[in-house]
Amino acid sequence: MAERPPVVMRVAIDPSRSTSRIEIRVRFGETDLMGIVHHASYLSYFEAARVAWLRRRGVTYATWAARGWHLPVVEASVRYRAPARFEDVVFVDVALADVRSHSLRFVYDVTRTDVDGKPVSLAVGETRLACVDAAHKLLRMPEPLLEVLMRAELVSSGDAVC
Amino acid sequence: MAERPPVVMRVAIDPSRSTSRIEIRVRFGETDLMGIVHHASYLSYFEAARVAWLRRRGVTYATWAARGWHLPVVEASVRYRAPARFEDVVFVDVALADVRSHSLRFVYDVTRTDVDGKPVSLAVGETRLACVDAAHKLLRMPEPLLEVLMRAELVSSGDAVC
Amino acid sequence: MAERPPVVMRVAIDPSRSTSRIEIRVRFGETDLMGIVHHASYLSYFEAARVAWLRRRGVTYATWAARGWHLPVVEASVRYRAPARFEDVVFVDVALADVRSHSLRFVYDVTRTDVDGKPVSLAVGETRLACVDAAHKLLRMPEPLLEVLMRAELVSSGDAVC
Amino acid sequence: MAERPPVVMRVAIDPSRSTSRIEIRVRFGETDLMGIVHHASYLSYFEAARVAWLRRRGVTYATWAARGWHLPVVEASVRYRAPARFEDVVFVDVALADVRSHSLRFVYDVTRTDVDGKPVSLAVGETRLACVDAAHKLLRMPEPLLEVLMRAELVSSGDAVC
Repeated sequence: MAERPPVVMRVAIDPSRSTSRIEIRVRFGETDLMGIVHHASYLSYFEAARVAWLRRRGVTYATWAARGWHLPVVEASVRYRAPARFEDVVFVDVALADVRSHSLRFVYDVTRTDVDGKPVSLAVGETRLACVDAAHKLLRMPEPLLEVLMRAELVSSGDAVC
Repeated sequence: MAERPPVVMRVAIDPSRSTSRIEIRVRFGETDLMGIVHHASYLSYFEAARVAWLRRRGVTYATWAARGWHLPVVEASVRYRAPARFEDVVFVDVALADVRSHSLRFVYDVTRTDVDGKPVSLAVGETRLACVDAAHKLLRMPEPLLEVLMRAELVSSGDAVC
Repeated sequence: MAERPPVVMRVAIDPSRSTSRIEIRVRFGETDLMGIVHHASYLSYFEAARVAWLRRRGVTYATWAARGWHLPVVEASVRYRAPARFEDVVFVDVALADVRSHSLRFVYDVTRTDVDGKPVSLAVGETRLACVDAAHKLLRMPEPLLEVLMRAELVSSGDAVC
Repeated sequence: MAERPPVVMRVAIDPSRSTSRIEIRVRFGETDLMGIVHHASYLSYFEAARVAWLRRRGVTYATWAARGWHLPVVEASVRYRAPARFEDVVFVDVALADVRSHSLRFVYDVTRTDVDGKPVSLAVGETRLACVDAAHKLLRMPEPLLEVLMRAELVSSGDAVC
């Protein structure tokens, strides 16, 4: 690996493989007194989508934690476009957008379907995750982890529960 | 309704119709530093199950709120038996257990399936809901509401997203 | 106590020493679309009160976790009497109510002050905590823990931040 | 400012008046299984700080909501620098950073104090809030609202409960 610069490795991502979609039913406790989904709830939706993205490529948290690999969120941002409401079913499209030597980035698009069947954009956002060991020390992305990140979904239909 | 005592009407419940089951995937943010699902999260699971119970019998929150009928939780209790963990799929069985003139009671049973396919009890609990109007004043359970409560599931299979 | 089986040890509690009060400002995200504090939020308020109760008697979570002593919630119940609203300051009075060989029980009373300065009861509840080791195995309450439970507040004024 | 279109009004902010600080005790339920404060909890901390910022300048949510003025979050971002842990007391410094004709921006700095009394940066972030009416329609910032935004704290010491 001598030829790689120590920090800024970048990996080419195939967009046709790098996306997953989950559906989430808005819970009562996720709303606030304005009658809409509280803005912090979107970070939970992103997280559920990201976890499903990994699971559909064969990875559970337990698998990686056991090897000492963790991916904490080090940056998050959200732009809110329209409110979601209680009992809405929202779609979260999550895509791997960037892989570097010690971090990766996912982007998110939250939509619902209006009465005419057209998608309505509710929010977009992104999170950057660092690769760290159990002691929270930065870790160069291990090869098996990189290999997983390049995978397409293994079992999209077999994962109805998100 | 003259023959009924003013408050303590009770309604016979058919157990074969009064139960629904939902599946929930434990989210990362629902865990706590002990590595297990935080105890308050179970009230959210109960709520998701109760909302699905109603939805599968044809009722959405918006429907009833528009008519001025609300069912706030006035009592809740939980007994925790075993921890649930991140990414577990848990089942919440919810059953209508009691209907009175101004309140109703649901009971909940949260389980997961162990490696041998056997159910493991994680928690049991119950909530009593009062029937109130938009001004939070106690309301005698309206007939259409009672009618819904006696229904079996209308669409169990068409409601994968809870 | 010879006539009792060993697991059912009970300890006399001095009510004048066993109570603490915290103040909590209701957060926006703790409300729901009915415009009131979501019912699950009360379990968080109970928890904040219980943690302050211990801290004011000299115990932090880290202290006991380091010795392998944990006190998970094994039962919780709440009765909701009146709604709390966004920005309300609520008082949570927490009292140790029962100590047994392997568990203890706290009771809670949540109030706010009305415009005439009179307390309004919002909710009451209780939680039972088991004493367990790091492997979640039941543990007979260690002597130093019992000693702490009998203490009065050490530093009530020095703990404004709850 | 003649050359700018009318919606892009900007208001000069006096840094000596535009900052407030709150203290928050990390709650158990705000942690996650990595043993640290869950990343979504920071949006709640920002919100508590922003609400206190307004309250210390004489504004409660109820005041403005009664006049049909709302300030929903339309953008949020956080950069996480170091983990906060259960029972930590964290400081949230919040400053008004930008006021435009239909929106405003707050910036946040979350720190804790280490054993030597030095501040440790935990997270920084910002939120942009739109000014909207009760129907979620964009509203030009009303004069009384602008007046409040230019105020210094009125009652910093009388607001211990955040």
